[in-house]
Amino acid sequence: MTKRLGNNTLLFPSKPVITGFYSVVGKKEWEGPLRQWFDLTVGESHIGETSWEKAESKLMELSTNGALEMAGISKEEISVFFGGDLLNQCIATNYTLRTLATPFIGLYGACSTMAESLIAGAMCIDGGFAKNVLCATSSHFCSAERQFRFPLEYGGQRPQSSQWTVTGSGATILSENGTGVRITRAAIGKVIDAGIQDLNNMGAAMAPAACDTLCAFFEDTNTTPWNYDLIVTGDLGNIGKDLLRELLFQNGYAAQNLEDCGALIFSEDQDAHAGGSGCGCSASVLNSYLLKQLNQGKWHKILFMATGALMSPTSALQGESIPGIAHLVQLEKE
Amino acid sequence: MTKRLGNNTLLFPSKPVITGFYSVVGKKEWEGPLRQWFDLTVGESHIGETSWEKAESKLMELSTNGALEMAGISKEEISVFFGGDLLNQCIATNYTLRTLATPFIGLYGACSTMAESLIAGAMCIDGGFAKNVLCATSSHFCSAERQFRFPLEYGGQRPQSSQWTVTGSGATILSENGTGVRITRAAIGKVIDAGIQDLNNMGAAMAPAACDTLCAFFEDTNTTPWNYDLIVTGDLGNIGKDLLRELLFQNGYAAQNLEDCGALIFSEDQDAHAGGSGCGCSASVLNSYLLKQLNQGKWHKILFMATGALMSPTSALQGESIPGIAHLVQLEKE
Repeated sequence: MTKRLGNNTLLFPSKPVITGFYSVVGKKEWEGPLRQWFDLTVGESHIGETSWEKAESKLMELSTNGALEMAGISKEEISVFFGGDLLNQCIATNYTLRTLATPFIGLYGACSTMAESLIAGAMCIDGGFAKNVLCATSSHFCSAERQFRFPLEYGGQRPQSSQWTVTGSGATILSENGTGVRITRAAIGKVIDAGIQDLNNMGAAMAPAACDTLCAFFEDTNTTPWNYDLIVTGDLGNIGKDLLRELLFQNGYAAQNLEDCGALIFSEDQDAHAGGSGCGCSASVLNSYLLKQLNQGKWHKILFMATGALMSPTSALQGESIPGIAHLVQLEKE
Repeated sequence: MTKRLGNNTLLFPSKPVITGFYSVVGKKEWEGPLRQWFDLTVGESHIGETSWEKAESKLMELSTNGALEMAGISKEEISVFFGGDLLNQCIATNYTLRTLATPFIGLYGACSTMAESLIAGAMCIDGGFAKNVLCATSSHFCSAERQFRFPLEYGGQRPQSSQWTVTGSGATILSENGTGVRITRAAIGKVIDAGIQDLNNMGAAMAPAACDTLCAFFEDTNTTPWNYDLIVTGDLGNIGKDLLRELLFQNGYAAQNLEDCGALIFSEDQDAHAGGSGCGCSASVLNSYLLKQLNQGKWHKILFMATGALMSPTSALQGESIPGIAHLVQLEKE
């Protein structure tokens, strides 16, 4: 039990290293401010498949293959795949695994899945259970709209507080040995329900969970926002990000170095309203913009905290509020 | 990397110990052959809640509280909760976590979730990241029928190959220290898709995955079925169990000591057709019949292998086949 600090923080003494990563996005994301950092765009929404669900699966296939290529290993060298997506029963991931055929721990953390998979993967590597694991997640605007909101053909109006589900996937390979960015600490989030019922304001539902995880982590590690080059949440969007900043301020933390994957991925003129969302949002931003700039030395130590809104369309119809969660990983370039 | 054997088997040198477990089931399950082993029945299907989804959440609340009481610890002493359920976006589990408020790693493995959570939990304990973790899952006949098949009010006829989703929940506490049944080995399953498209024959869709995991485990550990007092799958049901026996025979293994949670939980006169299914099936049978008899010394070493059918109603409507998965844990009474 030397791998815990305070109430909630995990330590990884062996510092699992990111040996491969890859991002793939749709057309709208490719046209946004992060274009230069993404590895690939797939163009049109079906990606040559017969359904949007299969197209989403294709995104994950592309990102995992890209990460394997960067790490220079074959899929047979992956001991465990940790991943999931937003679709009912995580079907995009399940279908990717039909061809990938690695041992598979399926996760569901809504939009927090990228950080969740990195924490589970780091525990697996640091615990000595694997040499290489793959962590991946995806989302697709069209499959998510159909499932969570309205059929696209209906042409529903989106309120300004709504977020745009990112079409994209990111994959990360964590290894026992190698060089690159390392995972040194993490915090597993708790479910925090602030009573928000508006499905078109998920940022507000997730911000309290982000604040809870971050404040617990600062307390456990005896640090403040200024001990990190960047704190990046994903995907609170513009409204949730402002709310988190305010909540942190109420807790005594001025976090000027706070960014959000959902706020970074689209520009204002792209009509994405409150910003990007979906598992693929933080996954594609982490596995491009963030990891590439960590590798280039722009930052040395950052906190990546993916946030999730754990509601379902059924629970929303039943009048339930939206539980939020936020998982945090500390990434360091050696 | 001393914690792996062969291609796919995990070893847990510290042997995480089950210090608490509890099962709660519905009326039909309570009237079945395992009645004497279950801890509690909730009676009617709403359990005093306003929806079946909330009732399912209540089941998990009851099972986790029971397990905490047996282990003699408070929820604050649980470092991580590993769990999930069958509902879209795992909403039953998410709602349980609103009140439980422990750090939460959400899993989705369909009916394989109980074994999946035990493997993730054992890695967490053996890796030194926690003293106590909680592993739990649930299912509810009414919430599952509504989501996966038809509204109950429709009164659809069920074919003889269909399985009956168990109303129930099971919770297990894994600890670093204590006495009881221990997890000594495990195997994380791969997604195997045998091309089955019939949603009313999930046993056939899952049996090939069960065979794959089991044969890989026998090979890695240089053992045969006879090295174990019992091999119990969950939940292949009667059809899937016979099919697994046949598949094992084709692979050179005669497994007379093969049982299945879905086949055990209902008697023939209960009109459950091919047997029980749902996350709560293997969870409630493990956390009653199996663990109690291991503790009593009836068996000393068993293999518990929960199986999952990783389809969604959307994928089924799109004509996709059903991917299967099976995760295995070796349980030993010291």
